Amino acid sequence: MKHQSKNFLFGKDEPEISVDPGIKRQLLGYNDSMMLARVTFEADAIGYTHKHPHSQVAYVESGVFDFTVGDETSRLQAGDCAYIPPNVDHGARCIEAGVLLDIFSPAREDFLS
Amino acid sequence: MKHQSKNFLFGKDEPEISVDPGIKRQLLGYNDSMMLARVTFEADAIGYTHKHPHSQVAYVESGVFDFTVGDETSRLQAGDCAYIPPNVDHGARCIEAGVLLDIFSPAREDFLS
Repeated sequence: MKHQSKNFLFGKDEPEISVDPGIKRQLLGYNDSMMLARVTFEADAIGYTHKHPHSQVAYVESGVFDFTVGDETSRLQAGDCAYIPPNVDHGARCIEAGVLLDIFSPAREDFLS
Repeated sequence: MKHQSKNFLFGKDEPEISVDPGIKRQLLGYNDSMMLARVTFEADAIGYTHKHPHSQVAYVESGVFDFTVGDETSRLQAGDCAYIPPNVDHGARCIEAGVLLDIFSPAREDFLS
C-alpha cells in the first residue's frame, strides 16, 4: 500500500482547503484504492463540469444540488447520491448551501500532493 | 464492468433491509470497484467485530459510535470517520442513535446477491 490515512480522523482536526469559489474540501479516510473527501458548498457555488478515470459516488449530506452526470441532471437533497462512471463528465450547482461526500476509487493521488 | 448502480439514487426510494438487531442497511451508489451503503443504528445496537478483504471507510453522518479498528477504539461523532485496512478486525457500538456511511473498495458482492 503506497497511501493510507490514519485509522481515525476527526472532522474538527482535519484541514479544509479552498478549491473553487464557495467550495472547500476536507480530505478524510483513504488508501490506494479509495478516498473520502467532504466538500462544503455555499449557495450558488458551482462544481465545474469535469471528468477523470476514477469511479465516483457523490452523497448529499445536507443542502440541495443540481447534479449532472453525462447529459442528465437531477436535483439531489440529503440522503440522495449520484454515481459517476469512469471518464464521464459531471458537475454540480449548489442550490441550497450544504455538504457533498465525494467517494473515489482509486484514490485521487492529485488530492494528496 | 460487471456491476453498476443507477446514476441517481434517492434515499426515499431505495429499500432498507434489517441486517442485525437495531441495524438497517440501504445500498446506494456502486460499481465493481466501490460501494456506498447507508447504515442506520438504534442506540445500543452493535456492529459485531468482523473483517473482510475489502478496504473500508466508515463516516459518521449522525449519532455517536464507539468504533474499533484492530485493537484501538475511538468515540466518533458527526463528521468523523474510521479507515479500516483490508483484513483488519473492526466493529462499532452505537452510543447515540445515528447513521454510518460505509464505503467499500472493491464492492461488497455479498450485498448485491
